[in-house]
Amino acid sequence: KKTYRIAVIPGDGIGKEVVPEGLRVLEAAAKKHGVAVHFDHFDFASWDYYEKHGEMMPEDWKAKIGKHDAIYFGAVGWPAKIPDHISLWGSLIKFRREFDQYVNLRPVRLMPGVPSPLANRKPGDIDFWVVRENTEGEYSSVGGRMFPDTDREFVTQQTVMTRIGVDRILKFAFELAQSRPKKHLTSATKSNGISITMPYWDERVEAMAKNYPKVKWDKYHIDILTANFVLHPDWFDVVVGSNLFGDILSDLGPACTGTIGIAPSGNINPPGLFPSVFEPVHGSAPDIAGQGIANPIGMIWSGAMMLEHLGEKQAADSIVAAIERTLGERTLRTRDLGGNADTTACGKAVAEMV
Amino acid sequence: KKTYRIAVIPGDGIGKEVVPEGLRVLEAAAKKHGVAVHFDHFDFASWDYYEKHGEMMPEDWKAKIGKHDAIYFGAVGWPAKIPDHISLWGSLIKFRREFDQYVNLRPVRLMPGVPSPLANRKPGDIDFWVVRENTEGEYSSVGGRMFPDTDREFVTQQTVMTRIGVDRILKFAFELAQSRPKKHLTSATKSNGISITMPYWDERVEAMAKNYPKVKWDKYHIDILTANFVLHPDWFDVVVGSNLFGDILSDLGPACTGTIGIAPSGNINPPGLFPSVFEPVHGSAPDIAGQGIANPIGMIWSGAMMLEHLGEKQAADSIVAAIERTLGERTLRTRDLGGNADTTACGKAVAEMV
Ligand SMILES: CC(C)[C@H](C(=O)O)[C@@H](O)C(=O)O
Ligand SMILES: CC(C)[C@H](C(=O)O)[C@@H](O)C(=O)O
Repeated sequence: KKTYRIAVIPGDGIGKEVVPEGLRVLEAAAKKHGVAVHFDHFDFASWDYYEKHGEMMPEDWKAKIGKHDAIYFGAVGWPAKIPDHISLWGSLIKFRREFDQYVNLRPVRLMPGVPSPLANRKPGDIDFWVVRENTEGEYSSVGGRMFPDTDREFVTQQTVMTRIGVDRILKFAFELAQSRPKKHLTSATKSNGISITMPYWDERVEAMAKNYPKVKWDKYHIDILTANFVLHPDWFDVVVGSNLFGDILSDLGPACTGTIGIAPSGNINPPGLFPSVFEPVHGSAPDIAGQGIANPIGMIWSGAMMLEHLGEKQAADSIVAAIERTLGERTLRTRDLGGNADTTACGKAVAEMV
Repeated sequence: KKTYRIAVIPGDGIGKEVVPEGLRVLEAAAKKHGVAVHFDHFDFASWDYYEKHGEMMPEDWKAKIGKHDAIYFGAVGWPAKIPDHISLWGSLIKFRREFDQYVNLRPVRLMPGVPSPLANRKPGDIDFWVVRENTEGEYSSVGGRMFPDTDREFVTQQTVMTRIGVDRILKFAFELAQSRPKKHLTSATKSNGISITMPYWDERVEAMAKNYPKVKWDKYHIDILTANFVLHPDWFDVVVGSNLFGDILSDLGPACTGTIGIAPSGNINPPGLFPSVFEPVHGSAPDIAGQGIANPIGMIWSGAMMLEHLGEKQAADSIVAAIERTLGERTLRTRDLGGNADTTACGKAVAEMV
C-alpha cells in the first residue's frame, strides 16, 4: 500500500496557524480511512526564510519538493516587508510555472452556517467549479517600457495564449463538466473588446466542444459574467477562464458564497509529472496573523482537494462532510463567521468529525 | 441663450424603443427648466443601415455628428446578424477612439423599488462612481497569430498604457473624488500578477495622488475588488480602473444594485473638443426587442448624465429625482423590476414627474 509523501510549506502569517489544523484533519481522516501519509516540513517560501537567506527558496528547491506526491501550502506574501514580485513570483507563481500546474481549480459552494451576502440563497443553491488557466495568458513576462519620464512614455505587456496551453485547460474543463450531473460548461470571454486573444480562446472552445457532444456549453463576456455570478449563481456548473478571468471569478465566486476565508484551491499538474499544490484562496493576512483567530477551513478543505486528487475520494469526502457539520455549529465556527471558536478549536472540531 | 444640438442615434433592437422615451423625458425636463435643446436624428450605427449600405456608418459620419454638443445613443449590436467586431468596432468603439472619449463614467447606486440581490442593503447604502479608461489598455489592436494550425500556434495581444492616457484618466478620477463629500478614491490594480503594465498604473496613481492631498485613496487587486463589491459595496466612493477592469466593475456594480437594465453611462471627452456619447449600459437585447417591454430607465438616466455634462445640473437632477419616484411605484416600473408598466408608460411617468 502506497504511502503518500506530502511536502508541507506553511509560508507566512496565518499560513503558519492554519497549516497545523489542516494537518490535524488530514491525519485524522487518513487514520480513519486507512490512508498512509507522510509529511515533510519546509520553512522556505516565507519572509522568515528570505530574511535569513536573501532568497525565497534554496537553489535546490526542486530537488527538495519536486518528487513529492503533493505540496500542502499555507500562504505566502507580506507586502509591508517584501514586495509581491519577489515573494509571490519567487514561490507560488514559480511552482505554477515550473511544475506546470496548468489547472487552478476552485469550488464555489454555499455552505451551511455561512451567511451569504446574496439575498435568498440557501446551501445547495450555489455549487460550481471555477477552472482557471494557471500558466500563461495575461500573466506573461513579455513587455516593457519606452521613453521613460517623458510625455511619450508607455508600457506594454503581452497576453500570450498558446494552442497547447489553451487546449489542455479546455480539455480539463470539458472533462470535468462531462463528469458532473448537469454537464454544463460556461466559458469566460471578452471577444467583443479584446479582439485578438479572446476570439482565439472562443475558437478553441468551439473546436474542443466537438469532442464533448454531451456537454452543454455557453459563453459570456467577463463583464456580464461577473454580473451573473451575483444575479444568477445557480446558472453555473463548471466555469472556465483565462489566467486573469479565472483569477477574478475564483475570488468573486467565493465572495458570493459568503467569504473567501473558507475557499480552497488546487494548482494541478494533471499528467502528474510534477507535484500539485493545494492552498487556501486567502492570503497570509498580516492584519490578523499571530492572534490565533484565523479561519482554518480553507486550509482544511484544500487538504480534502489534495486527497481527492491523490485518488482517496472517500477520505476527501469525509473531510468535506465534517467541514459542513462544523460550519453548521455556531460554537465551532470562527469569529469571521459569527462563531466563537479560535483556529485550533475549529480545526479540532473538524478532526473529530471526519 | 444657447441651444444644445444633440445627435440622436437609436441603433439596434431595444435602442429604438427606449430612445423615444429618453427624448420624451429630455423634452419635458428642458421645457420645465428653460433649457433649449435641438435633436438631429440619424439611422446609422445599426444593423438596418448596414444591411442597406454594407457599412455601419457613412463615410462622412464625423462631419455629420462631430460638431454636435453631445450624442444620445441607444444600443448597437445584433450578434446573430452581424459580428461584434463589425457592429461595435464600427460604431461605439470608433466613437470612443476617434472622439477621444477617454472617460467612461457610470454610477452605481441602489435605487428605490429595485430589489437588490445583496442581502440587507437599502437605497442610500450603495452610491459610487466607476471611472473607466476608455481608449487604450487591454483593448488594443496590437498583436497577432503565428504558426496557425500547428501545435506551435500562439496568439498575442498587447496591453498598452501610455503616460498621457493613464495620467488623464487618473486626473479625472481624482478630481471627481475631490468634489465629493467622502473624497475617497479606489484604484483597481493587479500588479501582483500582471507584472509590467499594472505596476506602471500603480506608479502613476501614486504620482497623481501627490496633487490631491485631500483625497484618501487606496488600491485593491481586481480579484479581491470584485469580491468587495459584493461584500462591502458601502466602502466605495469613486473607483478608477483600466479599460478592462473598468468594464468589469461597471457591469458588476450595477448588478450588485439589482440590474444593469437601469444603468446609464457617459463616454466623455473632457476637454469638449469632440462630442461625448451618452448611452445605457445595457445592449440591444434581441431577445426582448419589438415587444415594447424594455426598461427605458437606463436611457432616461443617460439623458440626465448628458444634461449634467452640458452644465444643466438642475434639469439633470430633476430627471434623477423623477426616476427615483417612478421606480418607487410598482405600477410605473417595467416588468423586469416586478412592475407592470410597458416601456412607454414608464417613460411617460418619468416625463410627468420631472
Ligand atoms: C460592447 C462592448 C465592446 C463594450 C465594452 O466592453 O466596452 C461594453 O461592454 C461596454 O461596457 O460598453
Ligand atoms: C497572489 C496572486 C499572484 C495570485 C494570482 O493572481 O494568481 C492570487 O490572487 C491567486 O489567485 O492565487
